[in-house]
Amino acid sequence: MEDYIAAVEQAHRLHAEGKVIETNLIHADAPNGEYHIKTGGLLGEAQAYYGLKANGGFFMNKERHGLPNILGIIYLSDAATAYPLAVFESSLISKMRTAAATAVAAKYLKPTGEIRLGVIGYGNQAEAQIEALLCVMDIAEITVSGRNMEKAAFFVDKMRSKIGISIKSAPIELTCRNSNVLITCTPSTEVLVESDWISPGTFIGAIGADSPGKQELAPELMAKAKIVGDIHQQIIKVGEAQHAIKDGLIAPSDIYGELGALVTGKLKGRSHVDEIFVYDSTGTAIQDVAAAAYVYEKLKDEPSIQHIDLFS
Amino acid sequence: MEDYIAAVEQAHRLHAEGKVIETNLIHADAPNGEYHIKTGGLLGEAQAYYGLKANGGFFMNKERHGLPNILGIIYLSDAATAYPLAVFESSLISKMRTAAATAVAAKYLKPTGEIRLGVIGYGNQAEAQIEALLCVMDIAEITVSGRNMEKAAFFVDKMRSKIGISIKSAPIELTCRNSNVLITCTPSTEVLVESDWISPGTFIGAIGADSPGKQELAPELMAKAKIVGDIHQQIIKVGEAQHAIKDGLIAPSDIYGELGALVTGKLKGRSHVDEIFVYDSTGTAIQDVAAAAYVYEKLKDEPSIQHIDLFS
Repeated sequence: MEDYIAAVEQAHRLHAEGKVIETNLIHADAPNGEYHIKTGGLLGEAQAYYGLKANGGFFMNKERHGLPNILGIIYLSDAATAYPLAVFESSLISKMRTAAATAVAAKYLKPTGEIRLGVIGYGNQAEAQIEALLCVMDIAEITVSGRNMEKAAFFVDKMRSKIGISIKSAPIELTCRNSNVLITCTPSTEVLVESDWISPGTFIGAIGADSPGKQELAPELMAKAKIVGDIHQQIIKVGEAQHAIKDGLIAPSDIYGELGALVTGKLKGRSHVDEIFVYDSTGTAIQDVAAAAYVYEKLKDEPSIQHIDLFS
Repeated sequence: MEDYIAAVEQAHRLHAEGKVIETNLIHADAPNGEYHIKTGGLLGEAQAYYGLKANGGFFMNKERHGLPNILGIIYLSDAATAYPLAVFESSLISKMRTAAATAVAAKYLKPTGEIRLGVIGYGNQAEAQIEALLCVMDIAEITVSGRNMEKAAFFVDKMRSKIGISIKSAPIELTCRNSNVLITCTPSTEVLVESDWISPGTFIGAIGADSPGKQELAPELMAKAKIVGDIHQQIIKVGEAQHAIKDGLIAPSDIYGELGALVTGKLKGRSHVDEIFVYDSTGTAIQDVAAAAYVYEKLKDEPSIQHIDLFS
């Protein structure tokens, strides 16, 4: 995870410096679901990469076929020649890069003093977020919540054996009131977190909202927080920020800045103990490419990896 | 090749019937070249597929790295679940599907009587076009030409040993005047074929022009021919038709129709011996997906093919 965090941080640094190949996306409806293709590239000093994620969102897959509802690949090529380097199943890399990006934001925006982490959500992403945050902060205790408290309790039991930190489940309001780092990572389309539940100085990672209609935080909370997005143009349309903008509580120009600006120092991180920061995460192909490139670099010389010479 | 032709014909039938997943494309500039992603899907009765071609056009690859200038992959997924089925190096399938599409058009639009084939171009695509046309017509003789007559002669020598048909090289004008089926498959950006070199009743496959500026036929020739395109919206922008439209010689509404309409019978094929037909080929993701699906279906049960279970 530490390496994913370094890779994603570097990707956002390159993004802020304009050392990227333009990102883009395609959406296509299929009879049982929809496809999303997200493309982009990174022009690193040592090596340039271009790639894409081609995912389907087929929300009957699990019920009908025992397959994941989100299913697809990440393709990585050498951006110096377009030579195909690797194809990965997309879910693991997506999960890791999303959590890694939150950790990058948290590194710059975390509260001062003892950290009490609250997590709203109990899926794979919740586990990855905890793992990533542990790389960038000491955590005194963790509280987990969600709309289904049984599932939250089950998740807590599973995590307790994995991490050596006090962890318990609690209702959403109590989890929010008890935390100064809060992660929301649910598929919710309505407000889960009210503004007055959040203490001054809190860092919130708003992970769930990444398409039109998805929402976890009260727009009033967004209005009083400093918002850092992964990609400005995305968060104002499909991120948590979409709702506060639609409600007229903030304008796109009120967004504090992008993750890449934080990383390069163009944007100041936390400067006051009472600031509330929201990291608005929508996901981008440059994170996928950075994470896929990290895995590729790590594995390419392993003897167990099969290489195919395309032009032998 | 016969199977590629059947697959591509079926793809255009599905396209004409609206049984497709929307096609789309992304272009991205890289420092040494550019990437093109083309996506689309086919909703066949037995099986639905969605896929994409991610190609780089890096025109120093050969000189600098000994790699093909056009380089990439075709990705195929099951459009019922988005399950990843296969990833192919893109050049072979691209070559075969382009030639197969010409053969489909030629089947409906070929001249009556003895066929004398002329080919302007001597690359891989020229060979594939000859192979494909031989599947849909008897050919009495072949004449090959191009801007470099030495390369044309070399190509003729190579082909002579492969096919049992009289084949020779000749200058472009003579090749045109001597042919009633003419294939142009060069990277030209200027007129190679003049209008008065073409006899009544000729079928022309205009393969080369597939991006802004590329051109092989005189606009006056396009104006007097019946034009059938693979995809109407593409040929008027990037196909051979772009120039006659730009010159004001024809309007987009003068295009006779699409390949899919020919295949389904909505569009009448040849009805008079003197009609000149131009098949304007620009290439589409549905051809790639159809051809990739054909290869996948053919190979998937071969013992030599390695299957990867993504979720074991």
